[in-house]
Amino acid sequence: METFEDRLQYYRQIINEKLPQVVNKTEPVSFYEPVRYILDGGGKRIRPILLMLACGSVGGRIDSSIEAAVAIELLHNFTLVHDDIMDHDDLRRNKVTVHKKWDEATAILAGDGLVALAYHYLLQTKSNDIREIGKIFTDGIIQLCEGQALDKEFENRFDIDLTQYMSMIEKKTARLLMISAEIGAIVGGGTMTERLLLREFARELGCAFQIQDDLLDMSKTSGKTFASDILRKKKTFLFVHALNNASETDKKIIKKIYRQPQVSQTDVATISHTFSKTGTLEFARQEVEMRLNKTEQLAAQLKSSPAKDDLLSLLPMILNRNF
Amino acid sequence: METFEDRLQYYRQIINEKLPQVVNKTEPVSFYEPVRYILDGGGKRIRPILLMLACGSVGGRIDSSIEAAVAIELLHNFTLVHDDIMDHDDLRRNKVTVHKKWDEATAILAGDGLVALAYHYLLQTKSNDIREIGKIFTDGIIQLCEGQALDKEFENRFDIDLTQYMSMIEKKTARLLMISAEIGAIVGGGTMTERLLLREFARELGCAFQIQDDLLDMSKTSGKTFASDILRKKKTFLFVHALNNASETDKKIIKKIYRQPQVSQTDVATISHTFSKTGTLEFARQEVEMRLNKTEQLAAQLKSSPAKDDLLSLLPMILNRNF
Repeated sequence: METFEDRLQYYRQIINEKLPQVVNKTEPVSFYEPVRYILDGGGKRIRPILLMLACGSVGGRIDSSIEAAVAIELLHNFTLVHDDIMDHDDLRRNKVTVHKKWDEATAILAGDGLVALAYHYLLQTKSNDIREIGKIFTDGIIQLCEGQALDKEFENRFDIDLTQYMSMIEKKTARLLMISAEIGAIVGGGTMTERLLLREFARELGCAFQIQDDLLDMSKTSGKTFASDILRKKKTFLFVHALNNASETDKKIIKKIYRQPQVSQTDVATISHTFSKTGTLEFARQEVEMRLNKTEQLAAQLKSSPAKDDLLSLLPMILNRNF
Repeated sequence: METFEDRLQYYRQIINEKLPQVVNKTEPVSFYEPVRYILDGGGKRIRPILLMLACGSVGGRIDSSIEAAVAIELLHNFTLVHDDIMDHDDLRRNKVTVHKKWDEATAILAGDGLVALAYHYLLQTKSNDIREIGKIFTDGIIQLCEGQALDKEFENRFDIDLTQYMSMIEKKTARLLMISAEIGAIVGGGTMTERLLLREFARELGCAFQIQDDLLDMSKTSGKTFASDILRKKKTFLFVHALNNASETDKKIIKKIYRQPQVSQTDVATISHTFSKTGTLEFARQEVEMRLNKTEQLAAQLKSSPAKDDLLSLLPMILNRNF
């Protein structure tokens, strides 16, 4: 496979062919049908691909990491199903969410099943470090739960600083990438240094991705609804930075807007103007830049390999959401 | 410790002292507070005690099974939190359920966290068979999910035979006891035969327990509300047996009663009378008896030990709910 895109497509294909085998049973229908539905729902398979490339970049055979890669994708889908219930989201990847198509009880159970199915695959990984792999996976889930809890707590709070906010993002968004990279490195037989390098690489990538996502939401050329985060009163990196750096008068205005039941287009313009006054967009762009530089510094310490090149090619794709 | 009761109390104490340490963190409050709440809620700790006794009965040091025992109790509490949401139950162990005290999102997350915390403890178990232990634990969770799904499906069905019903009970009730016993046996270094004997012992115990529970509900001397299962239109062992063995006329009457929004005291008397006509109570008593005999036959094949004696002493206590 000559090009990076071909290889990506190949890796994605591996996962997409494995996932339906996860649910080779049909009964009870009310359990396996929603599980199959979410797994059929597409998705970019970023996390399993990151895991496989991390494995390859430390000299491991990518084949040996497929079970763990499937496990990570199952775990990711578990978080989607349960988060959608908690966040009352009706759509996911342009499809009706599980709890809307069926009901909440069905979605809770499907999510629970996905966690168990994830462990089922993880434990099939051929590695002498299965206990260590299991621990990293498990502690990752605990961190994910903490991140989701913090995210919900922040919904009703205005006293969050950027450090607290980034700590939440690390748990909620970056952690799953971190455990993907670290488990990939272990399965591939990487050294402790390689494990840590790849984990930190994934942390910076995850944080950069989240901030970039917030920035794209404020871009009039992204093709998506402009400022949908403000319209949904979401506490983003931009919002937290702006609120912490706004004048006392602007702070009061921002809080008042976010305490209303509905946000108007005028409100969007007001908050967007505050983002300018506080230099928020520029600060966020620098933050993304800084974190990307870190990923490159970290990757520079890994030995050269085709998988490492692919890891680096992955970055701009993920950040520009072309992936 | 001279008496069986003293030893039981001692084992229960071990679990009750370990459980609060599971949540030694306090933040995020919205995650750790509900987890602590459910773990503080009491409970008989049957499953971890079964695990510890299984370990002891194959010659293992009971000390070595404490982490796995804690894991099983955490897993059990996960099922309680999520099942209570799915079943819309407001009370558990005389306390308000998690989703009622907080909300559904909080309860979903607390349950998810309990699964991960369970694995966290399980993976601390000192054993060379940690992969095997993890697999049994994991496949047990998948079976539990299947059992819960079947139970919900049965709520709207009248075409269930006793074999299908018992298959559901095995997954939903007996499985957690089975994995407790089997994991205890592995941690204790038991042979494959001992593992299987203890697993089957737990299966029969779990099934006997469920049927006995249904019988107690129809006993006027149990001290609980008479026929609460019928009042809640629950599909019990008794109901399924009676429906499958009733005359065509009685079948129609029973179905009509269970299709009503409310069940009256007259309806309770009607169904109770059908139980008599179909010989259901007598059949259920024989079934409990038969399964208890099996547990004794299975236990007879285990070598003599104080832990084995305690396992056998456990049976009548669990069945009479004095435990």
